[in-house]
Amino acid sequence: MIQSKGYAAQSPETDLAPWTFNRRAVGPRDVQFDILYCGVCHSDLHQIKNDWFPGIFPMVPGHEIVGRVVKIGDQVTKFKVGDLAGTGCMVDSCQVCENCKQDLEQYCLDGNTQTYNGMDRDGSMPTYGGYSDTIIVREEFVLHVSDKLDLAAVAPLLCAGITTYSPLRHWKVGKGHKLAVLGLGGLGHMGVKFGAAFGAEVTVLSTSPSKKEAAKELGAHNFVVTSGAEQLEAVKGSFDFILDTVSAPHDFNLYLSLLRTNGTMICVGVPPEPAQVAAFSLLGGRKSLAGSGIGGIAETQEMLDFCAENNIVSDIELIDIKDVTSAYKRMEKGDVRYRFVIDMATL
Amino acid sequence: MIQSKGYAAQSPETDLAPWTFNRRAVGPRDVQFDILYCGVCHSDLHQIKNDWFPGIFPMVPGHEIVGRVVKIGDQVTKFKVGDLAGTGCMVDSCQVCENCKQDLEQYCLDGNTQTYNGMDRDGSMPTYGGYSDTIIVREEFVLHVSDKLDLAAVAPLLCAGITTYSPLRHWKVGKGHKLAVLGLGGLGHMGVKFGAAFGAEVTVLSTSPSKKEAAKELGAHNFVVTSGAEQLEAVKGSFDFILDTVSAPHDFNLYLSLLRTNGTMICVGVPPEPAQVAAFSLLGGRKSLAGSGIGGIAETQEMLDFCAENNIVSDIELIDIKDVTSAYKRMEKGDVRYRFVIDMATL
Repeated sequence: MIQSKGYAAQSPETDLAPWTFNRRAVGPRDVQFDILYCGVCHSDLHQIKNDWFPGIFPMVPGHEIVGRVVKIGDQVTKFKVGDLAGTGCMVDSCQVCENCKQDLEQYCLDGNTQTYNGMDRDGSMPTYGGYSDTIIVREEFVLHVSDKLDLAAVAPLLCAGITTYSPLRHWKVGKGHKLAVLGLGGLGHMGVKFGAAFGAEVTVLSTSPSKKEAAKELGAHNFVVTSGAEQLEAVKGSFDFILDTVSAPHDFNLYLSLLRTNGTMICVGVPPEPAQVAAFSLLGGRKSLAGSGIGGIAETQEMLDFCAENNIVSDIELIDIKDVTSAYKRMEKGDVRYRFVIDMATL
Repeated sequence: MIQSKGYAAQSPETDLAPWTFNRRAVGPRDVQFDILYCGVCHSDLHQIKNDWFPGIFPMVPGHEIVGRVVKIGDQVTKFKVGDLAGTGCMVDSCQVCENCKQDLEQYCLDGNTQTYNGMDRDGSMPTYGGYSDTIIVREEFVLHVSDKLDLAAVAPLLCAGITTYSPLRHWKVGKGHKLAVLGLGGLGHMGVKFGAAFGAEVTVLSTSPSKKEAAKELGAHNFVVTSGAEQLEAVKGSFDFILDTVSAPHDFNLYLSLLRTNGTMICVGVPPEPAQVAAFSLLGGRKSLAGSGIGGIAETQEMLDFCAENNIVSDIELIDIKDVTSAYKRMEKGDVRYRFVIDMATL
């Protein structure tokens, strides 16, 4: 076993605090890398608070992880000690189902293994995430990270990045398309960057008029305040795609009305309550409401390579790990542009 | 003006009863045809009862109309007196918007003109439907009907037929696909026939175990009773497409769980309340919930021609027009296999 230190929630009622724990030893196909940076995803907070389902405690969150390889198993071929490496939301899957075989491990029919708040596939021990000093991951789920980019700003690509990159690629969003990005947070700001990079005309739909300039700087061509009825009316029936990154309750029928005929609204956020979808909102223009979850491993590597080639990273605020609870409080108020990243040197 | 007789609701509180009214004179681009048969669609009842929106009264329902041409305007080129003819849910559209130009008049950006419970585009008079002796429709919205098929059984193709044909064609459902048809009523039974004709493996999902044999006779390969938890569990994650024809409240998340990864559930029914859709039901397998409304005119003609070539009609129960109110009562109970059609000779 390998001793690791990190920050854990001992129960849904307690804040994150320092904790020392064991990780599995490095197996023949495993890569161990020391963690340099870990992004702070809103789902970290949801999970330590049991918002979605009962979690496994103590819980070490974090699934936007980058670092440097310190040890490899003797069958590992794709990494060597000293390489930069990254891991996102999952660390394993069955590898044999039809989805895994199609590079869709995120939809593994046997269930993928989450980077934290899951169990290793042999059922022996829980998985622990990236708010910690080191991690052991099977080679297939470790990503190569370019040294050309700011490493701290790469971390959020492993979740916020791939979660927005994947659906935009799957639905072939690009030149000639009008894309609306609903919500300008951790996911939304990456949706804007990718949408613009792919050649779409990007409009940010946001509740905050104050984000207009920032949206333009990220690459958005247009900005619409969603509280403004007139502004919304002006874009009714105009978008080919809406990338909906909002996890707060919102009016799905209103946003579906902004799609043109044959348009698709793609949900990547998880609101606490089911969406209320009127049949006429879909029938009236052969519209689709779709969902997408992260991306497969091959696609995640493709995304990281695309980012390296196109100089794309997240806009981040680097924090000390001792400040993670206050960062959560700011995140809950939407007071972050656009992702907190923990500098693991502060552990 | 042309005097017409039919059955009308004088208000949402009254039953249908005989009524004499005026239709517009036959214009240079109009076709007048005497109505031989008219199908009874559940939406007829919804509209005369103001279930969806305040209607225009007196209201003559009926939008599954077939008959024989008796008069044509002097600029009409596609029909001659004596031809069989049909009209579905719409009788006009702007003809110039981008949707109309792409043969998607059903999604006319200026709004199409409904066959009844609408206003002529010049705003001069209401439109009146097919529960009547004759109708005048602009040439572009009149369909050619083959004399090879049972004419009474062709009538429901104009709504129930095209409403199921169009989405199956749009989403390219066919060989190699597993298609579930949810609900075995007027729309559902046509969905089964078309799905099977297009080469899909068709499963009927129905609340009524008694419909099993009938489903097989219509061409379904499998039958699943939706009240049976075990039967449902067995088809979880198995369908590429679900054609949802149900207009009663139902559990969308349950049916979304029956889709495989990348699957699409297509709604053609209109439940009274919005669907409750959990984000995880879509995100968990990159699934889509879509809607589709009738079909364009060119596609409706294609559907009628396909039916003539493949000997496809609706399964109907022919009724006298005086019995339409009791037919509505049976329709509300789901006691019809699968469409009532009014024999207009009984008017």
